[in-house]
Amino acid sequence: MRDFLPEDVRRREYVIGVIRRVYQRYGFEPLETPAVENLETLMGKYGDEGNQLIFKILKRGEHEASGQADLALRYDLTVPLARVVAQYQSRLPRLFKRYQIQPVWRADRPARGRFREFYQCDVDALGSTSPVIEAEVCAAVSDALTELGFADFTIRINHRQLLTSVLSLAGIPVELHGTALVAVDKLDKIGPDGVKGEMQARGIHADAAAKLLEVFDFLAKDREGSRSVLVDEAGIAAFENVAAVFAHASGTSAAPRLRFDPSLARGLSYYTGVIMEINVPDLAGSLGGGGRYDNLVGMFLGQSVPACGFSLGLERILVVMGERGMFPAGLPRTPADVLMAVFDASDAPHALRVAGLLRGSGLRVLVYPDADKIGKQIKYADSLGIPFVAILGGNEIAAGTVTVKDLATQTQATYDQAAAGGAILEGLSKRG
Amino acid sequence: MRDFLPEDVRRREYVIGVIRRVYQRYGFEPLETPAVENLETLMGKYGDEGNQLIFKILKRGEHEASGQADLALRYDLTVPLARVVAQYQSRLPRLFKRYQIQPVWRADRPARGRFREFYQCDVDALGSTSPVIEAEVCAAVSDALTELGFADFTIRINHRQLLTSVLSLAGIPVELHGTALVAVDKLDKIGPDGVKGEMQARGIHADAAAKLLEVFDFLAKDREGSRSVLVDEAGIAAFENVAAVFAHASGTSAAPRLRFDPSLARGLSYYTGVIMEINVPDLAGSLGGGGRYDNLVGMFLGQSVPACGFSLGLERILVVMGERGMFPAGLPRTPADVLMAVFDASDAPHALRVAGLLRGSGLRVLVYPDADKIGKQIKYADSLGIPFVAILGGNEIAAGTVTVKDLATQTQATYDQAAAGGAILEGLSKRG
Repeated sequence: MRDFLPEDVRRREYVIGVIRRVYQRYGFEPLETPAVENLETLMGKYGDEGNQLIFKILKRGEHEASGQADLALRYDLTVPLARVVAQYQSRLPRLFKRYQIQPVWRADRPARGRFREFYQCDVDALGSTSPVIEAEVCAAVSDALTELGFADFTIRINHRQLLTSVLSLAGIPVELHGTALVAVDKLDKIGPDGVKGEMQARGIHADAAAKLLEVFDFLAKDREGSRSVLVDEAGIAAFENVAAVFAHASGTSAAPRLRFDPSLARGLSYYTGVIMEINVPDLAGSLGGGGRYDNLVGMFLGQSVPACGFSLGLERILVVMGERGMFPAGLPRTPADVLMAVFDASDAPHALRVAGLLRGSGLRVLVYPDADKIGKQIKYADSLGIPFVAILGGNEIAAGTVTVKDLATQTQATYDQAAAGGAILEGLSKRG
Repeated sequence: MRDFLPEDVRRREYVIGVIRRVYQRYGFEPLETPAVENLETLMGKYGDEGNQLIFKILKRGEHEASGQADLALRYDLTVPLARVVAQYQSRLPRLFKRYQIQPVWRADRPARGRFREFYQCDVDALGSTSPVIEAEVCAAVSDALTELGFADFTIRINHRQLLTSVLSLAGIPVELHGTALVAVDKLDKIGPDGVKGEMQARGIHADAAAKLLEVFDFLAKDREGSRSVLVDEAGIAAFENVAAVFAHASGTSAAPRLRFDPSLARGLSYYTGVIMEINVPDLAGSLGGGGRYDNLVGMFLGQSVPACGFSLGLERILVVMGERGMFPAGLPRTPADVLMAVFDASDAPHALRVAGLLRGSGLRVLVYPDADKIGKQIKYADSLGIPFVAILGGNEIAAGTVTVKDLATQTQATYDQAAAGGAILEGLSKRG
């Protein structure tokens, strides 16, 4: 897990700000849940591998010595959302659209853009099975990435039931579907031969594995052709659902991004319908993903609530933006606009008072705390990129003035203390 | 630990926004650290009681069965800061001023304004022993509370060494100072007789306990009188340091808030100099506190770095603001400015397209996902306080228009789809 120094935090806050603003435009409202959930809330929701990756918290007090865990760190934002919807149902609108931007923790092996603590930026809508929801979450993440400057991402779309139908079509027995999906999920990483090999190693016949990859190829090349290939009703309904999402998204910003990918599997076990994943060419993993999970809330509420959402991975986005140099030039890079110099220790109280006046004008002011030589103080400002130094000597204090030095132009002028803030603001706006 | 529903999050974000802006004006830069620290980083930094309250994380994988913990949840923001400063010293400015607004976790018994997960809003400056620092952190928190609308808070100030001197003066042996401070720290809660009783129960002579409270009274009434009472050099130096903080703060917004309180103790064990605490009349605990801790970074770096900071407790502030009704009326209360109604399921793709246009104008738009009766959709908007409903029927789609209904005035008008956003924005600005 990592520390974020000031420049990192500013970049993170910029990206989060853009995403939050876009999510709000889509009518999503903010939700925050605790970092810590009951262990039993999380166990069994993410598949076997997921269970292994949950950080577990030791019981406290007299029970600590038992070595048992009763709490756990949040693993994603979806399961806590399902718990919240079950718990506060009467206080939430019938159609609950929420965004949530918080860290999650997984005891995973770190890799490029993959960390043990990372932020997810989620939108989810609960209460409707309409494909309007899928289209809207795709449009929302699409707008967010576009506003951040991404122009080359794709949103791949598939459907869990369609996948099941295709697995059956290829002759893979139902009891091996889970095994097959784990292998298919690695298609991007290990390629078709790798997937075939892994399937065979796990007891799936070579012919069935080959057939599956053929069907994927066929469907990917000819989405409409799926209709003719699919034989079971559930598969056809799933196909029509995918088609409806494409139709609903046709007038949105997501339209040019969407690709049907019949082999897309997604790892998490709670998905029940359409699944989605965002990719860019220069990152092996995804920038985000999502899907429909109509049964998850029911695991807490005992009554099913349809749900669908999308999650953007903040760290992945930051890695790509950093490598491509996509951050705007205007992000602040300095701790302050003005360094308030202190001539003499006995004058420091005056320096603090004048700093207060400058801050009142909206300026960010760093008061130099020690009465070092004035040259050293100016050099310090320069080393941090602080553009102005305010100097307060005995003459200035007596006259109620302050001298302001512009480090870029190496010019200085003396102002009434109350007027200095305005003058510095003007100087700042000129340099843009 | 608690969930924050949309209205809660908006209030929290408002308060955090004000505090962050003020901290930035004082030249503090943002820092974020992971929720999880090595257990050994935290142990022994917060006193015996603190050690008990740390949430500990079980080892992972094959070591999970050992029942041992190697990681822990952040207990405050100060110890992680000290670790960061030791770890990244070469990348940080000589005078490092940082703010950090993040949650911390303590396995404490919950009470009013006290939770097991809570946010601290910290400012700290490292690298200077000047009383400029103490004065600035007091001014920063003072400005923050004032901007939030607090007009009745006090910042009590004391000094750890002054406290030690006064304990000695009262005849309490050095080996019982720790015990005495634990009792003194409860003065607000249990009163003078309670403190005397607890001291006696812990082996401090009744005369010494009585004398101590007398000296506190004397000093509190006559700060300047302290000079005559104190007999050891360290105590006098501490007193002069407190006086310097008052002098430096004299021209700042903190000046009218500061009170010398010779009995202020503060619980945490790492303080070495001036200590501070903020109180309001209607909350038993404090809104925040801080102090100087010149030896903490040295525990990680092996080389001492002077440091001083102040921490505001977000939850305490929110509790008081909620009870007093201090939140501004302008905080958003609705998920959207416009509900985009869907007349007929087959029109939904058009509704999504027009919603995109409205969002492009900066409006927050909720697309109603199902083709319910239009009256039901309008009623839904009304129930959520959404002021406008955009209606798109077959006529509008054919004409490229959209009908906008103002729910407050019960009037409606039809606009070109591209012009509707502007019209709604105008309507919103009129109602302020």
